[in-house]
Amino acid sequence: MSVPRAAVPAEPRSVPPATTAIDTASLKPLLEPRSVAIVGASTVPGKIGAIPVAMLREYAFPGEVFPVNPKADEVFGYRAVPDIASIPSAIDLAVIAIPAPGVMAALESCADKGAKAAVVFSSGFAEVSEEGRAAQQKLAEFARARGLRIIGPNALGVANIDAGLVASFCPFFKPRFAPGGAVGLVSQSGAFGGYVANLAQDRGLSFTKWITTGNEADVEVADGIAYLAQDPATRVILVYMEGARNGARLVQALEMARAAGKPVVVLKVGRTAVGAEAAASHTASLAGADAVYEAVIAQCGAYRASSIAEWFDLGYAFAFGKAPKNNAIALVTVSGGVGVMMADEAETGGLDTVPLSAAAQDRIREIVPFAGARNPVDVTGQMLGDLAGFEQMVEVVLAEHPFGSIVGFNAGAGHKEENGFRIQKVWETVRARHPDAYIAISGATPPAVQRAYEAAGCLVFTAPDTAVATAARMARLAARLAEAPSPIAAPGAPADIPAHALNEHEALELLKSAGLPAPDVRVAATPEAAARAAEEIGFPVVVKILSPDILHKSDIGGVALNLATAQAVREAAATVLERARAAAPDARLDGVLVAPMMPKGGVETILGVTVDPVFGPMVMFGLGGVLVEVMGDVALRRAPFGLKEARAMIGEIRGAKVLEGVRGTPPADTEALAAALVALSRFAAANADRIESIDVNPFLVFPKGRGAVALDAVIVPAAGRAAS
Amino acid sequence: MSVPRAAVPAEPRSVPPATTAIDTASLKPLLEPRSVAIVGASTVPGKIGAIPVAMLREYAFPGEVFPVNPKADEVFGYRAVPDIASIPSAIDLAVIAIPAPGVMAALESCADKGAKAAVVFSSGFAEVSEEGRAAQQKLAEFARARGLRIIGPNALGVANIDAGLVASFCPFFKPRFAPGGAVGLVSQSGAFGGYVANLAQDRGLSFTKWITTGNEADVEVADGIAYLAQDPATRVILVYMEGARNGARLVQALEMARAAGKPVVVLKVGRTAVGAEAAASHTASLAGADAVYEAVIAQCGAYRASSIAEWFDLGYAFAFGKAPKNNAIALVTVSGGVGVMMADEAETGGLDTVPLSAAAQDRIREIVPFAGARNPVDVTGQMLGDLAGFEQMVEVVLAEHPFGSIVGFNAGAGHKEENGFRIQKVWETVRARHPDAYIAISGATPPAVQRAYEAAGCLVFTAPDTAVATAARMARLAARLAEAPSPIAAPGAPADIPAHALNEHEALELLKSAGLPAPDVRVAATPEAAARAAEEIGFPVVVKILSPDILHKSDIGGVALNLATAQAVREAAATVLERARAAAPDARLDGVLVAPMMPKGGVETILGVTVDPVFGPMVMFGLGGVLVEVMGDVALRRAPFGLKEARAMIGEIRGAKVLEGVRGTPPADTEALAAALVALSRFAAANADRIESIDVNPFLVFPKGRGAVALDAVIVPAAGRAAS
Repeated sequence: MSVPRAAVPAEPRSVPPATTAIDTASLKPLLEPRSVAIVGASTVPGKIGAIPVAMLREYAFPGEVFPVNPKADEVFGYRAVPDIASIPSAIDLAVIAIPAPGVMAALESCADKGAKAAVVFSSGFAEVSEEGRAAQQKLAEFARARGLRIIGPNALGVANIDAGLVASFCPFFKPRFAPGGAVGLVSQSGAFGGYVANLAQDRGLSFTKWITTGNEADVEVADGIAYLAQDPATRVILVYMEGARNGARLVQALEMARAAGKPVVVLKVGRTAVGAEAAASHTASLAGADAVYEAVIAQCGAYRASSIAEWFDLGYAFAFGKAPKNNAIALVTVSGGVGVMMADEAETGGLDTVPLSAAAQDRIREIVPFAGARNPVDVTGQMLGDLAGFEQMVEVVLAEHPFGSIVGFNAGAGHKEENGFRIQKVWETVRARHPDAYIAISGATPPAVQRAYEAAGCLVFTAPDTAVATAARMARLAARLAEAPSPIAAPGAPADIPAHALNEHEALELLKSAGLPAPDVRVAATPEAAARAAEEIGFPVVVKILSPDILHKSDIGGVALNLATAQAVREAAATVLERARAAAPDARLDGVLVAPMMPKGGVETILGVTVDPVFGPMVMFGLGGVLVEVMGDVALRRAPFGLKEARAMIGEIRGAKVLEGVRGTPPADTEALAAALVALSRFAAANADRIESIDVNPFLVFPKGRGAVALDAVIVPAAGRAAS
Repeated sequence: MSVPRAAVPAEPRSVPPATTAIDTASLKPLLEPRSVAIVGASTVPGKIGAIPVAMLREYAFPGEVFPVNPKADEVFGYRAVPDIASIPSAIDLAVIAIPAPGVMAALESCADKGAKAAVVFSSGFAEVSEEGRAAQQKLAEFARARGLRIIGPNALGVANIDAGLVASFCPFFKPRFAPGGAVGLVSQSGAFGGYVANLAQDRGLSFTKWITTGNEADVEVADGIAYLAQDPATRVILVYMEGARNGARLVQALEMARAAGKPVVVLKVGRTAVGAEAAASHTASLAGADAVYEAVIAQCGAYRASSIAEWFDLGYAFAFGKAPKNNAIALVTVSGGVGVMMADEAETGGLDTVPLSAAAQDRIREIVPFAGARNPVDVTGQMLGDLAGFEQMVEVVLAEHPFGSIVGFNAGAGHKEENGFRIQKVWETVRARHPDAYIAISGATPPAVQRAYEAAGCLVFTAPDTAVATAARMARLAARLAEAPSPIAAPGAPADIPAHALNEHEALELLKSAGLPAPDVRVAATPEAAARAAEEIGFPVVVKILSPDILHKSDIGGVALNLATAQAVREAAATVLERARAAAPDARLDGVLVAPMMPKGGVETILGVTVDPVFGPMVMFGLGGVLVEVMGDVALRRAPFGLKEARAMIGEIRGAKVLEGVRGTPPADTEALAAALVALSRFAAANADRIESIDVNPFLVFPKGRGAVALDAVIVPAAGRAAS
């Protein structure tokens, strides 16, 4: 009896990520307008209609500004016009700061004046009622019809710091953000966007563009990401999101950022929310919607942060510092114990605290005899007394190995400005000689000293463990960006999937035709036919009841294993048919399935597909048994994908070691498994609208070189189809 | 055939945690001295010998101060004496700020002057060389001989803020810490202790006592914890440690803090360090030394923080706020999305975002029609315009349910002092009506407003997720403290453990006599004896080769299962003996073991013991198979312990659901399992010096009510004994 081999497809041809890129040019009038009208401009400081006018003045916006206010001649030094029709020239951007009922008419008038973009502050739309939702829908239709891009409604607006544009009533644009920032922000929530502006003020961080999208009648988070991806000033993109309606657009935007080599750091809420609909299949219950976001964000080369602090620290680090070029980290500390803590954090984050050579250790001990010299390097409290020696020690470290990052802990040594600047000068010199390394220091640092560090490209953190953890996260993200995107597999050919519930044989045959390895099985209507089938296949065989209505065959005694003779098959087939009739009198019985008995050994895995309402078909992989059932240890990818992603899925589950072989079992044929995942992803992509879910369980993976095989499968057709 | 039942012992009698408490009275001269001499006092500001004198002046220390300096008449306004002998009256505390070679003589002179405690700043001891280690040992012996308590050497010293005592050269005691602090600090590292003082200055936090222990010739971290446990002013104890030499003392100190109802938050470095010695047994390799600390800290009711930020946030929270009295949390936000983020964090931390009743939700929507009313309560941006309405909403929430905690997110609403104080007043009113709740707000908060919140017992965090995570951690710690300590099991009776390697039968019999359930097995020297033994036990049986030198019996074909007749047993015994002789000609063969064949079903678990060099015998529990092998999913406890701890161990492994029954398997007999863990812990405690490790694998747990049984066991005698 031969084990079926996985039909390993050649790496499927790459297809371009998308043929129609998101139209970022249409966002230029929004973020780079030559002229701005503020409808509902107010002369009263602090009012929603006043803040953007005041801010345009504050930031010395170089274009034309037209406050629309029937009662004032002037608003914050700009000549007011009584109505939109009176604006003397064409406008690019309209800022709408009037109550909801007047918004549509105002937009029409602005469009007539040539406006190509609008920011709608007004609330009272989809966030309050069904009527509001309808009114918002009209705004969306108007935007599409007139080619006008709309931010909002119910949005806090946008800003382009370098261009002097603040089209927002957020109070945190004063004091003025400095030009020359590196961080682009896209926030779905205005309140959160304002909060982040405040965080940035406190941290001395400036934005390139600051975009809040509000109710997203038109412009959504994906548009903002795509715009920032092509914005030369933006070096890192921070995204806050609650959810996306169009997964494909989000994927496209993230891929644009990856293609531009720009890190995207996403804060997505709803980490623990479980999708409301109870999912029919096993796979669906394992792949909650949030897990889908998590998978898609990583698959597109972006990074999902697990806390606000982590998210913002990454923005800070990419703005002022350099991402580590490799995983080797050097740790320089005035406290041995804190060195251990930093090494803990490095190991947790996947960085390697490479020990120094004996020669380098000797050189360090020549400078300070009781220094810890291995890495972490404990320069001891003597450091402050001999900064030249300290500089020499750091140079010994960096000359020893091309460390991608170096993190220092000064404890309190630099807490006074005088000492702080003396230490800072040492690091500035080091930075000049090592322009590509991630350099961060931690400990007590006065604000002025901190600014000097940052100006020199050295990061400053209060806590040493955070400094190391941030290096690890940057390294991970930078590595994803440096890799070419995974070649995307072409979807397979659409299959002829019946609308009715599929039995095991139908499901396996479909998957087999899609390239998944499955055994040579026969359907037999009678015990006699079963015996003939067994003779064709070769003994020993398995006989199983065949019915789309009986999911747990073993439970009703519907499976007979290891049958060695035609007579045994005949008897077994009769028995299982009888038991099925007794146990499930209403079930549709399609006869019995005769399959070759699989050899012992092999690792049981589970492959699955669910169709996510936002991102489409998602492929799931996990190990059979407790790891999936109890620990929920699964990997997910958006379909279709290539072998590289499939290999990554296999490697990223927590139980991956099982496939490498534990306690003397041989390593499993992970290449056959990867090929099957690719084939399943292509099948799922080609049939996204025909299926609801697929479960291949178990998918048995034999030792390396011996292939793999799907032993059972359930395909649930899309709901609309099954009902037909 | 009957399944052996676990011999469930009655809850073993409680024994007092320790008969000799750590002598905290001896630390009073150190932290509450009436007089202080500074040996090596300097008039040069910033010098090590100058700072403590200047600080005693700064803090207006009310006792006598004697700077010892042969060249100065006065040091920072205190009259100097030329040498120790010239000190005019008895002293309590000596601060030694001179080079190492003079330290011993200075200590002797100070002791002659009545000193009962000393702080030794001097470095050059165990941290630099073997000679230094010897000199330090002399200090330790002197301390014991003269009843003098010594901090250091190589220590940054101690401070007692309320008493005006700063016996430290740490530069961060200026500006002056306010009296009336709540946080006691014990840090093994001076550099880290200074860094924490700086963090405290930045956060507006004050210490009760601040203790750094340096090289720990005498006073160690455990002493500091014990002292703070009995210090009335200290409400929370922050501990930084690198390691303990005496585990029993640390346990005793932590238990003193628990008995006093004081939270202890520990930052322990070395999280990822794996013990250097490769451990002989399976269990040892799973229980690295750091995992032992982790387990012991929790077992003693303390909390181990995973980052500096988490650790310090907990100190801040216990200092200014109230620990949640229960797990119900209310979330009040101006941003719906951030409400979801807070709910995520609550769920992750084990808090329950209890939904409001329909009636309460209606009342909230009466105040703001489009408010999110379920919990999280989204008060919307309207809140600032109607603070009375906001207060009503918060009151509706708190009247609805006895929420243990309530966390607000203001985003930027309170960023200006005026608005900030208006919102703060609302929370202050709420706080007055709900004095026991954990109340924290987050968002942009000016420093003056923050101080007002804190004065009212409301915590302020920058990030909303941190505010929720801190509530969850406090709740966990408070719950541990509120519980009575787990009754500690008495150690069992010492057993007669042979010094040679034990075979399976000897090991199982020893454990059986200690109260672990094990099958009724017989040793047989010959096939004929095996057949007779089987007849006594009853069929079916298992026959296994018996040898202390053959660990993996199955691998050499040394196990025969399910033998139903005497003849089958005879043949099997002959075969396994033959195979063993062939496979391991040098092995000591002790015959064969005849055991009843166990019924199918049951969950395979692993119980183990290792003897930790610091904490003594530790009991390990995990599930058989991949969960232990691949995921390292184990629970650890210091032996001996009672049923409560045993139940907690069983519940805390990640795979605990397996024992509750998955996919139709019945729940396992966890009470029998818990009883076995208790019995094993008592055996381990009674025989700590006789064993190196114990492995009970598999320990089979049958369905509820049907007991459990040890199927195999390895006991490795302590190294010194096995060699004898």
